[in-house]
Amino acid sequence: MDSPQQSDRLIGVTAGRDKEEHSAAVEDKGQTSADFSRIYSTDLLPAPGGEEMTGEFLKELVNILLAYISKSSQRSSKVLDFHHPHQLKEGLECFTLDLPDKPEPLEQLLVDCRDTLKYGVCTGHPRFLNQLSSGLDVVGLAGEWLTSAANTNMFTYEVSPVFVLMEEFLLRKMQSIVGWSDDVGDGIFCPGGTISNLYSVLLARYHFYPEVKTMGMGVLPQLALFTSEQSHYSVKKSAAVLGMGSKNVFMVKCDDRWVTSKYTNRFLGLVPFYVNATAGTTVYGAFDPLDAIADICQRHTLWMHVDAAWGGGLLMSDRHKMKLRGIERAWSVTWNPHKMMGVPLQCSVILVKKRGLLQECNDFGAEYLFQTDKIYDVSYDTGDKSFQCGRHVDVFKLWLMWKAKGSEGFGAQVNKCLENAEYLYDQLQRRTHFELVLKNKPEHSNVCFWYIPPSLRSLPPGPDRDARLHQVAPRIKGRMMEKGSVMIGYQPLGDKVNFFRCVFSNPATQQEDVDFLLEEIARLADDL
Amino acid sequence: MDSPQQSDRLIGVTAGRDKEEHSAAVEDKGQTSADFSRIYSTDLLPAPGGEEMTGEFLKELVNILLAYISKSSQRSSKVLDFHHPHQLKEGLECFTLDLPDKPEPLEQLLVDCRDTLKYGVCTGHPRFLNQLSSGLDVVGLAGEWLTSAANTNMFTYEVSPVFVLMEEFLLRKMQSIVGWSDDVGDGIFCPGGTISNLYSVLLARYHFYPEVKTMGMGVLPQLALFTSEQSHYSVKKSAAVLGMGSKNVFMVKCDDRWVTSKYTNRFLGLVPFYVNATAGTTVYGAFDPLDAIADICQRHTLWMHVDAAWGGGLLMSDRHKMKLRGIERAWSVTWNPHKMMGVPLQCSVILVKKRGLLQECNDFGAEYLFQTDKIYDVSYDTGDKSFQCGRHVDVFKLWLMWKAKGSEGFGAQVNKCLENAEYLYDQLQRRTHFELVLKNKPEHSNVCFWYIPPSLRSLPPGPDRDARLHQVAPRIKGRMMEKGSVMIGYQPLGDKVNFFRCVFSNPATQQEDVDFLLEEIARLADDL
Repeated sequence: MDSPQQSDRLIGVTAGRDKEEHSAAVEDKGQTSADFSRIYSTDLLPAPGGEEMTGEFLKELVNILLAYISKSSQRSSKVLDFHHPHQLKEGLECFTLDLPDKPEPLEQLLVDCRDTLKYGVCTGHPRFLNQLSSGLDVVGLAGEWLTSAANTNMFTYEVSPVFVLMEEFLLRKMQSIVGWSDDVGDGIFCPGGTISNLYSVLLARYHFYPEVKTMGMGVLPQLALFTSEQSHYSVKKSAAVLGMGSKNVFMVKCDDRWVTSKYTNRFLGLVPFYVNATAGTTVYGAFDPLDAIADICQRHTLWMHVDAAWGGGLLMSDRHKMKLRGIERAWSVTWNPHKMMGVPLQCSVILVKKRGLLQECNDFGAEYLFQTDKIYDVSYDTGDKSFQCGRHVDVFKLWLMWKAKGSEGFGAQVNKCLENAEYLYDQLQRRTHFELVLKNKPEHSNVCFWYIPPSLRSLPPGPDRDARLHQVAPRIKGRMMEKGSVMIGYQPLGDKVNFFRCVFSNPATQQEDVDFLLEEIARLADDL
Repeated sequence: MDSPQQSDRLIGVTAGRDKEEHSAAVEDKGQTSADFSRIYSTDLLPAPGGEEMTGEFLKELVNILLAYISKSSQRSSKVLDFHHPHQLKEGLECFTLDLPDKPEPLEQLLVDCRDTLKYGVCTGHPRFLNQLSSGLDVVGLAGEWLTSAANTNMFTYEVSPVFVLMEEFLLRKMQSIVGWSDDVGDGIFCPGGTISNLYSVLLARYHFYPEVKTMGMGVLPQLALFTSEQSHYSVKKSAAVLGMGSKNVFMVKCDDRWVTSKYTNRFLGLVPFYVNATAGTTVYGAFDPLDAIADICQRHTLWMHVDAAWGGGLLMSDRHKMKLRGIERAWSVTWNPHKMMGVPLQCSVILVKKRGLLQECNDFGAEYLFQTDKIYDVSYDTGDKSFQCGRHVDVFKLWLMWKAKGSEGFGAQVNKCLENAEYLYDQLQRRTHFELVLKNKPEHSNVCFWYIPPSLRSLPPGPDRDARLHQVAPRIKGRMMEKGSVMIGYQPLGDKVNFFRCVFSNPATQQEDVDFLLEEIARLADDL
């Protein structure tokens, strides 16, 4: 059995003894922080009298986070302090993943917070160019902090009145930016672009075959889906999850420009119903010809989805939005503000042209949540539009960032990222020993290239050189990570061996970082 | 065209002019906060010299959040300040949802943050008893704040080294608590319990019919799923989404105690493959007899899933864990730490006994993320186990709370909630005009009851009284919300008319709040 003091501590009752310690521990709160080695989480709110210590603890945490954010924004800091999994698991300088049976004091938690950040990756660093999501927007961060303090759920207006209305407002705004008229349009925020894309397939199937909801795929013909070979793998994942089978996703060759008539023989016996067009592919940042695809979809009555998870952000820029011409003809659109718009993870949206379809497709009317005899207009209980039940509040940070930047600020941010991409493209043409994967000016902020290290420069083109070049990017990337100086992705694609993909979505990145990247690659590869 | 100053502001370049304003605005940072009416988000990091202002802004935000948290923990504060959707949409005291084209100053954002909290619902209030997720754990909140500052993604070790290892560690710990041996077990954190349950059906289908991934449901027999009539609606939702059809989910009557042999005639031609047992139902908090269900599943080689989204927390309590006896025989388990363990939303886990199945079922090996030629052990790139691509970091807050409380602290917290439920149960028996829906002592922290207002007390049992009683809970609930004094859920179930469901998962709630609830209901209904 626990001693009485221990049980008190465990359930959050502050005993007299603790109160005394407490005052001693705070002492001079204006200048120095409390002595957290004697304070436990049970001394925090909701414990009686816990306000002061709660404030002290969270402010100390914020100091740690501010130091991290400042450091992450300094070019002299490392992007990461790399350790192998076994090193972190074995424990480093008192940092251990182990979890105790007994409570640990707040001081230990604060140390753990510092260590967690220390061994992590600074995704906000100006030289983190590794993913489509990067940077750290301070206002977006503030939005997340408020969201977690509000700690509520999107399923009903009852528990999320403001957030539900913000969601409705932002969905309409985004629909209008896509080019839909006021009398159509619906949507929902989703946990990531793959789930948004999954919704598009789910809705397309329900639109053509509503009986699938109750009866299942057994009463449907075999369905065929179309997407480009450079599209995101989420279309195949969705077909697998939804019970359509990944082999029934037809991968259209990219230079075929969607002349689907060529493919009729290949899907004999299958019923085409869904086409995914990509606005901003993952690797090249390429845009499918949306208008041409819309013509085909219209002719054959196919559901046209546009995966603009990555490219959607360009709609905010007067300079670049014409790359998505035709998107207004889509039946559904995926758009991830957590990518090109720099909203903290996660923030993804599925927009659906046909109003009411999300609700019809997904509702089961659970009476413990969606009572119809509430005092307010229950059409604002939007939870049954989702195939989730509880749903995280992802809208507030986007709303707050929009206030902070205005639509124009988002546009300027997008323009800046694409200027960085153009600068890199120019530099790659000017500098020796770099080769562009695509000769044309980038459409989005993706720039793909090879670096040719000394030992390969005299080799003639051919399989031998390719095999050796294939190993170059992974080796340079490994060295980058060990040194922690910069991070950039690489991959093979089709018949092209491993090449670097640089993507710009971090507003912190400047031209000097682009120069640094190229010089650093040359430095890291000088003995290869 | 924008003026040069405007463009500078839009893309985050701090001009000399701004620098001057900036210093004037901060002045005496030790005592008073900056004048945010002249500061914009572009003055914050990553703008050069933005450290100080970033700190000022986030600290001011934290002051707002601390005031909110303190207020939410005071019984004298309202749980909510109710407004109808149209009122909030029309705008209240300068609060408007509208989003501008031009940037707004930080002062406006801080005002908006205050208003967003003001018109929201205090889910951490000791008298918020409305949902299975309630309360606000300060350490969990700190974990979320760090998570959003780290702003990364769970798909690869490359960008989330510490969080990926924490996930592995916690999944193993939770598997061991469920009772699985070291040589089995896998799992993943999911965005909510419904998606965790969806995984269980997806994995069960793949386990028996791996060809479904590529070929789709067309090559499978018609499948039948079983769950109790009081289980969560997510089983039906999953069957609809996965293309099995909701009508093929058989709802076992709860007093039948899972004697499935009775149902053989009903699913002639269908192939049973999956059984969901619930540990802690949504409304009653009831526990299915897991061992008996496991026997049936074993005899018929059916996948046994346990939806312990709500009941899983009881595994942390030595006093209550025997209610989940048999859970170790499950093939998969859903467990939401964001419910009974009080972790901030979202934090849900699917545990899977068969190691490797998640990966086989979901992987598509995208080469831009899951390169096999990385410098570290790529088995830690766990993103392809998920049917998401990007995945929010939900693990850190749980890990940090576990450090803070220890396993024993979680146990004590669960015990406290169930003691509150027992206290309410006792009070309902003692007080007049309250009727229990179930006569037995609650198994979990759910307590369901009716209040009989004056006008109904003399009516004989029967359809007329039932019809009138059905309207009582919604009317009282409406008044509660308008007054903002307390929040509790209600619903009908089966042949039972609308009744209140009180659930305890908020460690802030004390017996005095239970007394208040009952007295408040009587007060609010005195003219009904």
